[in-house]
Amino acid sequence: MSHTAELIAVGTELLLGNIANTDAQFISQGLSALGINVYYHTVVGDNPDRLRAAVELARTRADILITTGGLGPTCDDLTKNVLAECFGKRLVFHAPSARRIEDYFRKLHSSRPMTENNYQQAMLPEGCTVLDNDWGTAPGVAFEADGVHVIMLPGPPRECRAMFTHRAVPYLRKLSDGVIVSRTLKLFGIGESSMEAQLRDEMNSMTNPTLAPYAKEGECELRITAHAADEAAARALIDPVAAELRARFGPLVYGVDVPSLEAAVLALLREKGLTFGTAESCTGGLIAKRITDLPGASAAFRGGVVSYAAQVKHDLLGVDQALLDRYGAVSEPVAAAMAEGARRALGCDIAVASTGVAGPDPDERGNPVGLVYLALAAPEGTWVRRTEQNLKERPRIRHIAASHAFDLARRYLTGLEMK
Amino acid sequence: MSHTAELIAVGTELLLGNIANTDAQFISQGLSALGINVYYHTVVGDNPDRLRAAVELARTRADILITTGGLGPTCDDLTKNVLAECFGKRLVFHAPSARRIEDYFRKLHSSRPMTENNYQQAMLPEGCTVLDNDWGTAPGVAFEADGVHVIMLPGPPRECRAMFTHRAVPYLRKLSDGVIVSRTLKLFGIGESSMEAQLRDEMNSMTNPTLAPYAKEGECELRITAHAADEAAARALIDPVAAELRARFGPLVYGVDVPSLEAAVLALLREKGLTFGTAESCTGGLIAKRITDLPGASAAFRGGVVSYAAQVKHDLLGVDQALLDRYGAVSEPVAAAMAEGARRALGCDIAVASTGVAGPDPDERGNPVGLVYLALAAPEGTWVRRTEQNLKERPRIRHIAASHAFDLARRYLTGLEMK
Repeated sequence: MSHTAELIAVGTELLLGNIANTDAQFISQGLSALGINVYYHTVVGDNPDRLRAAVELARTRADILITTGGLGPTCDDLTKNVLAECFGKRLVFHAPSARRIEDYFRKLHSSRPMTENNYQQAMLPEGCTVLDNDWGTAPGVAFEADGVHVIMLPGPPRECRAMFTHRAVPYLRKLSDGVIVSRTLKLFGIGESSMEAQLRDEMNSMTNPTLAPYAKEGECELRITAHAADEAAARALIDPVAAELRARFGPLVYGVDVPSLEAAVLALLREKGLTFGTAESCTGGLIAKRITDLPGASAAFRGGVVSYAAQVKHDLLGVDQALLDRYGAVSEPVAAAMAEGARRALGCDIAVASTGVAGPDPDERGNPVGLVYLALAAPEGTWVRRTEQNLKERPRIRHIAASHAFDLARRYLTGLEMK
Repeated sequence: MSHTAELIAVGTELLLGNIANTDAQFISQGLSALGINVYYHTVVGDNPDRLRAAVELARTRADILITTGGLGPTCDDLTKNVLAECFGKRLVFHAPSARRIEDYFRKLHSSRPMTENNYQQAMLPEGCTVLDNDWGTAPGVAFEADGVHVIMLPGPPRECRAMFTHRAVPYLRKLSDGVIVSRTLKLFGIGESSMEAQLRDEMNSMTNPTLAPYAKEGECELRITAHAADEAAARALIDPVAAELRARFGPLVYGVDVPSLEAAVLALLREKGLTFGTAESCTGGLIAKRITDLPGASAAFRGGVVSYAAQVKHDLLGVDQALLDRYGAVSEPVAAAMAEGARRALGCDIAVASTGVAGPDPDERGNPVGLVYLALAAPEGTWVRRTEQNLKERPRIRHIAASHAFDLARRYLTGLEMK
């Protein structure tokens, strides 16, 4: 039997736009992996009538109802009260939860006093499954009533993610049959429209597995999703499609089921036992930041220089002053000299460099916003890529420039043409 | 007359969790600023029946209906077809939009061919207001029918934001009376629970303005929101409350209506004509990245060194090898030496440094995950702050560590006690 879940997020801060509903994103990914359909997400404020309306509608079209938020003392445990009422459950005091909350305050927040309203969080629907919260104070709740499984999770994303992964998923796993399995090809260097135009027939005609393209921040993804009785059967549906797409898009595919370009680069560096360094101007530390986002970066990453001022390019990276004077900081020769200087200064096997105009204004030589040179220096030589983005947004220009640096490194490390 | 808007996002990628509904966040912020209430967000997939159900419900409880997504060729212009049908409008060919789409492809995407399905995007509901899209191909649409204002915007966040700001807001402004004005106090160094406990009475008793606390990534915000006939009247309601809160929380308040700690620091640096630099170990470039996220950073920021490897701390920052051997890289003396070394190497007035354990594992000396030393070196001396976060998440540890570095800089630049 296939299940359908519906998500209801509770929180006025969502309706005011203070935060995005990232809980829904995280939970939807998890439900998809469990083979559970999701047809609607709803967001309501801290308002019992509107929450009640959302719940009454959701129970008519889904057999799993997951709420996030509205469990804490600041909203007077709105969600628990409304859901208990909708499903005819009384709230009863749950002593173990009260003790857990006391412990939580004792251990982690000795500086913050436990307040009266924290005890309200231990009032739970009678007969429910208590989902212990090891990441915060509000316990989660699960119960079944009238053929609907209700799961209530706390709203703060850190708590919600942990509670979903470690508490709700095991509960849901017992309900599901069949699996949905996805593999995602990651591409760099192709536009979404162009990829879609090439794949439109397949996208429309395939039913299992399905093929869906996504674009984000200068990259494209192709997600192949199969529904089958078990993981192995799903893989058997996916693998030939993945192989065909890899062959078709060739060197544009930088990985399958890898989280990011930088993760692909770090894995290659570690595999080959090579060290890496950075020299950054317009990306201002973003390339270094992205590789050090990854646990284990220290195995390959030695360090970097953020040379925003010209003097720093000269003093720390040894970029010749004559080069700076003649070509300007945003130029092919300076990009190359920065990467070579980083190799020397940091003592690493390969180094990448960025110099360009992130905006909002053109530089003093009139180079346009969006023009960025990326360089890679290695024992065999130095390569420079010139990129010009038709964008005005500083964060995107910087992000895509950093991605080009990682793409250069990936091409070098896999022996592809350096272009 | 007060208006109520409802947001419907269309896209299976939202229900699969591939992306978060950041469009809803952005639009909600804008609607709040216009004094327009939002009581529900809904997300549906690329499915005409479920979209129709969401629209039929929304029109019973809101007089402004804003959709995002489902306008592009890959979903066969689902949203436009369904909304036109729900409100009894025919779709007619809009020649100027077809020409704009042709132009868009000619100018920006010479490498990508315009495909047949791009022309579908020029089929628009008869009598509608066309919202020209200067950021992509799908035009937006606005019309009024049966007392409901319908606005359809493209889904990709970059397009959606620009289209909302430059097209939908002017359209909506004509409908609204009164304004909602908010001021946001930003605090660093206080926990959300503790702030809420101190403010619970005010939060519950105040009605206009209202007071709402938010916590994110180690910071707290206090948002004061007033509803009034015009901006000046709203400000007169807010200002005394803001002054009282500033006095109450003193040096914990780092700014009002400033986007971030780093923006507060950059403004102070520019005001005082001082230059800034960084030496980063565990934050790996994040401090430099955050300050260079800001346009105009080059006026104060000279550069930074990411010294991940011990050798780089020694070679580029001049950290004494004996210090590294004796105390280890994660220590107060090394943090101080890094900041002092950065001042020398980068030739800046003040420099901050970070060294700590971002995880996932303790360091080789057994320092626990979450322990970070931050230092600030200035002409008057060097200060070190020891922080220990009860967290295991690498991104949060790094983000909060970087925030502490900016907090040190802010305290130094405003003459507060350095602690």
